[in-house]
Amino acid sequence: MVVVLEKNISDKQIEDVIKHLEDFGFDVHKSTGVEQIVLGAIGVKPDFDTRKVKILDGVAEVYRITDPFKLASRTFQNYDTTITIKDVTIGGDQVVVMAGPCSVESEKQIFTLAEAVAKSGARILRGGAFKPRSSPYSFQGLGEEGLKLMRKAADEFNLVVITEVMENAQIELIQEYADIFQVGARNMQNYSLLKELGKVDTPVMLKRGLSATIEEWLMSAEYILSSGNKNVMVCERGIRTFETYTRNTFDLSSIPVVQKKSHLPIIADPSHAVGLRDKVIPMARAAVAAGADGIMVEIHNDPDKALSDGPQALLPEQFFDLMKQAKLIAEAIGRTL
Amino acid sequence: MVVVLEKNISDKQIEDVIKHLEDFGFDVHKSTGVEQIVLGAIGVKPDFDTRKVKILDGVAEVYRITDPFKLASRTFQNYDTTITIKDVTIGGDQVVVMAGPCSVESEKQIFTLAEAVAKSGARILRGGAFKPRSSPYSFQGLGEEGLKLMRKAADEFNLVVITEVMENAQIELIQEYADIFQVGARNMQNYSLLKELGKVDTPVMLKRGLSATIEEWLMSAEYILSSGNKNVMVCERGIRTFETYTRNTFDLSSIPVVQKKSHLPIIADPSHAVGLRDKVIPMARAAVAAGADGIMVEIHNDPDKALSDGPQALLPEQFFDLMKQAKLIAEAIGRTL
Amino acid sequence: MVVVLEKNISDKQIEDVIKHLEDFGFDVHKSTGVEQIVLGAIGVKPDFDTRKVKILDGVAEVYRITDPFKLASRTFQNYDTTITIKDVTIGGDQVVVMAGPCSVESEKQIFTLAEAVAKSGARILRGGAFKPRSSPYSFQGLGEEGLKLMRKAADEFNLVVITEVMENAQIELIQEYADIFQVGARNMQNYSLLKELGKVDTPVMLKRGLSATIEEWLMSAEYILSSGNKNVMVCERGIRTFETYTRNTFDLSSIPVVQKKSHLPIIADPSHAVGLRDKVIPMARAAVAAGADGIMVEIHNDPDKALSDGPQALLPEQFFDLMKQAKLIAEAIGRTL
Amino acid sequence: MVVVLEKNISDKQIEDVIKHLEDFGFDVHKSTGVEQIVLGAIGVKPDFDTRKVKILDGVAEVYRITDPFKLASRTFQNYDTTITIKDVTIGGDQVVVMAGPCSVESEKQIFTLAEAVAKSGARILRGGAFKPRSSPYSFQGLGEEGLKLMRKAADEFNLVVITEVMENAQIELIQEYADIFQVGARNMQNYSLLKELGKVDTPVMLKRGLSATIEEWLMSAEYILSSGNKNVMVCERGIRTFETYTRNTFDLSSIPVVQKKSHLPIIADPSHAVGLRDKVIPMARAAVAAGADGIMVEIHNDPDKALSDGPQALLPEQFFDLMKQAKLIAEAIGRTL
Repeated sequence: MVVVLEKNISDKQIEDVIKHLEDFGFDVHKSTGVEQIVLGAIGVKPDFDTRKVKILDGVAEVYRITDPFKLASRTFQNYDTTITIKDVTIGGDQVVVMAGPCSVESEKQIFTLAEAVAKSGARILRGGAFKPRSSPYSFQGLGEEGLKLMRKAADEFNLVVITEVMENAQIELIQEYADIFQVGARNMQNYSLLKELGKVDTPVMLKRGLSATIEEWLMSAEYILSSGNKNVMVCERGIRTFETYTRNTFDLSSIPVVQKKSHLPIIADPSHAVGLRDKVIPMARAAVAAGADGIMVEIHNDPDKALSDGPQALLPEQFFDLMKQAKLIAEAIGRTL
Repeated sequence: MVVVLEKNISDKQIEDVIKHLEDFGFDVHKSTGVEQIVLGAIGVKPDFDTRKVKILDGVAEVYRITDPFKLASRTFQNYDTTITIKDVTIGGDQVVVMAGPCSVESEKQIFTLAEAVAKSGARILRGGAFKPRSSPYSFQGLGEEGLKLMRKAADEFNLVVITEVMENAQIELIQEYADIFQVGARNMQNYSLLKELGKVDTPVMLKRGLSATIEEWLMSAEYILSSGNKNVMVCERGIRTFETYTRNTFDLSSIPVVQKKSHLPIIADPSHAVGLRDKVIPMARAAVAAGADGIMVEIHNDPDKALSDGPQALLPEQFFDLMKQAKLIAEAIGRTL
Repeated sequence: MVVVLEKNISDKQIEDVIKHLEDFGFDVHKSTGVEQIVLGAIGVKPDFDTRKVKILDGVAEVYRITDPFKLASRTFQNYDTTITIKDVTIGGDQVVVMAGPCSVESEKQIFTLAEAVAKSGARILRGGAFKPRSSPYSFQGLGEEGLKLMRKAADEFNLVVITEVMENAQIELIQEYADIFQVGARNMQNYSLLKELGKVDTPVMLKRGLSATIEEWLMSAEYILSSGNKNVMVCERGIRTFETYTRNTFDLSSIPVVQKKSHLPIIADPSHAVGLRDKVIPMARAAVAAGADGIMVEIHNDPDKALSDGPQALLPEQFFDLMKQAKLIAEAIGRTL
Repeated sequence: MVVVLEKNISDKQIEDVIKHLEDFGFDVHKSTGVEQIVLGAIGVKPDFDTRKVKILDGVAEVYRITDPFKLASRTFQNYDTTITIKDVTIGGDQVVVMAGPCSVESEKQIFTLAEAVAKSGARILRGGAFKPRSSPYSFQGLGEEGLKLMRKAADEFNLVVITEVMENAQIELIQEYADIFQVGARNMQNYSLLKELGKVDTPVMLKRGLSATIEEWLMSAEYILSSGNKNVMVCERGIRTFETYTRNTFDLSSIPVVQKKSHLPIIADPSHAVGLRDKVIPMARAAVAAGADGIMVEIHNDPDKALSDGPQALLPEQFFDLMKQAKLIAEAIGRTL
């Protein structure tokens, strides 16, 4: 931590600030410049609340000089994390594609879509069985029945399954059927859930909260990692801004930022970010071009009748076209898909 | 729902849009203007996804014409909800004050602060026993021991207790000790928790999420109301914006907006909104002047040593001064405090 | 400037960073901690682009330790600036009130409103003669004719005049008629205009840009101050956020922040911040309670027929009621109005 | 405009609202639904302030049903605008590349960089002669000397010149030397400048304001178009959000949105959006993949010594590599570069 003192600070105040810092457990170094004195406070715990120093008399500014996350940081692990499920590796040279419906609705629907996913060359089937909905009056998912159908369809077409977990009580059940847990944006700071997911080995994909900074998002990943589960990937899905033409603003620059700060794989979900089918295709291409380790795309064979989020789902043919373009783009930047 | 059609739409396309609307269950009225055709689609369920219509060929814009919340709406109940706990009424003419430490830390601390709260004339004691912390390495609260101490202190000084609940598994325990449940900003869309809190009678104060629109916030209140608990109040605590000098931006205009849209009482929490003691006092005064039904303020007798959020806590003497000013302001606008 | 080096930096890289800093003209102090090395770079010019250091190999973080503004800063001048025009002082104990229509529309209109302003006890008449409108098809103001009418009405009722200046070519003309220049939010970073306004003595009220940080806003004030005009006040008028129920989000916490950082008076404009009449009253009261040095309020005797912004204008009677409440609130916090 | 009435509205109030609408010049159609009455108000001018209706008694919501811009709209012109300067066409199948330094600094610098631009295959040279700087103490550009150097270098290497215009007084001068005017983000709503640029034929590239909605941005384009200049293109350069790791948030989804709403070409500027060299490359690729009609990239041969924005400039070799990848990506989506 670096503590910048005010220009007109008295000697008594300087002593006082130093005393406080020492009481907080820091080792203090003082540098006297021409105009201003700067204190270096060494030995900070990552969670020290710097405002404790900011409010002391004579303190102008305080800067934390270490990232608050450790296990998620590239300083801690300087090679990329890879997560392998069956024969699919996430975080390597190959860009992975996760596709499927927003919600599992019926056996027919999920089999049709799983077939389309497999046919396109993608290897991961997404689908919701428990749905977080902003209205209590909306369709809330098929529950365990949805999980069973998804597993069956995935096995038929040799796919890996990812699905959302919303509360601690669902972990055990979902683990029976799915290969990857998804934590939704609204639960990014549901710490009780994150800690429980840290106690299993099943990989977890953590979506970014709607107004989460990249730092907070990686701190939430830290909750899972520090509880013991190292198989964590993160997923950009749009942030909330003043713009209203799109559902959210897809923050693609988070991809190179996360890759610099952290060793965890990063997936991008254009479907939730923009919310309308005709914007999903260019944004999915952009995510691959920006260097994402994978993309997650919603597809539906009959989106008009979809029980949730139909308008953002691609039709299978649109998805096949997207896969062809995405493959060429991945190759243009030295990766495969 | 109002559906505006594109200027150059063909007759075939118009028929097609109408057919879709009827299939979705709407009764359709067509108004032909000089330049444009507008369809009124009557009979919409509050959770209908308007994007289903927005993506149809020939559709220019779609507007939902009803608020998505019902029970929380002033259209449903046109008088103000009041919540009475012991002899304290929230939502009436009197502005209530909730004060206390961020976290309960010890018997001595909570008794000292409860005494200060009572002495100031405030009647509600706040304090955290289970703390949501963005770092897994931070102090997580005293748990049940904290609840016991807070109840004991409140009873000694005839105060009402409010404390945060973070997960379903804590509801029963907290109910034994507290009078009001607080749902934190990070859990505003933890629907599983909201539904469980709808099954009890204990009042619930629902904080606004960091990036929640007022509409989403009232939708979350709707989750609790629709599960059966009518004793709901909401709490503004700042939203996330680009400004970095303050922790969050305290959206005081949400107070008159919520009061117009809804019958639920609205409390304001300047401590979390601005995050630094010297800004808390003017913002607490502003909240009363803006018409809040109550304010929630963090206080601490030894903020330097506070285990969480010390820098935003007022000292007891500052709090007494604030209470005097706030009383005069309440009177200036025809209320009491 | 403080430069934090990466943990695994080589000696060669350290030397290299120091060499760069010296080439940029800094005096460098090195502090070696247990885990990390921190360099203090003394002698920075306020406008040094810290990213030049951030991109050097081995650099983890860079912090500027001085505010980029000087003349606007409380470090430079530790007493409050007051601006006196005729017998009205802005920035002292008395909270000033600026009121009037959005646009000057006719002699009758401006005289009626000037009379209402005077009757209420307010002393400053606002009104637009040149209007910045987001649509090229909207009413653009009466121009010089509007200025003349406003001056005449102000003189009749012994009021001070404030009006908006939009471009360099208008400065001389407006100066003949008005006592205070207003720079609108959209021109907050029109540096060419700011520099010209720095060359006159007439007071300037600088509105905060819709997405300006407080730092940028004070930097824009610095442009005027550094060109020679010391009579500068700033005006909070709402920032842009994701919330859509209100036109903008009124950032009242900017009031105590500016008062801590700067010696310049700060005015608050609730009319533009919230955009609808029934929200203006509580927000005007809140601004006074938050400690603003003045408020600016739009009023209109026939808002339905107003040529611009009628919906946010108070009726004269509403304004009189507001003045009574605001006076009591000012007194509650030890000021007058 | 669609006006939704409140559920409990009286007949007298309904009449009153209709009377107001007619007085505003609308032709009113009334549709009575089961629960609610909706009025269609036909004949609206694009700049009508809908808040005038929103504040009437008995009105629940008001929706404008036409975009406020006309000439910029795809409804007005359903084919893409193309702008041809010498042998370079913007807005066609070919993705154009604009590159060069932030500021022109010397003859040697601009010739070196113009050569690099030409060698890469790009055809448009960018460079600033008049610089808008947030600090009055920063380098403000070489002025006319910079314009001369840029023209000379461009002619030597057969390039088109784009440079920023900051005020009306510069238009004539810049027109002598440059082929395209650039309007910076801070001037997006400098209406006086926009109108003047509408009176010339020289193409104008209008950057999006930091907190401008897409609608406001197209409204500003409308100012230029409605004053007579049809050669307008727009440029996405990042918006302001709560995220602080990047300078701004590059809103790539504005590309497909603008292409759907408008016929004007859209360029993307990743250098200003992200602000650090290592994030510029992936974001430039992403912009091409998202379908931008062009990209604008800052390059510098000696970025350490650049007088402005050095840290976001690519080195020539990085730029050559980017061009190769961008070419492949353009081809992947059926375009050339």
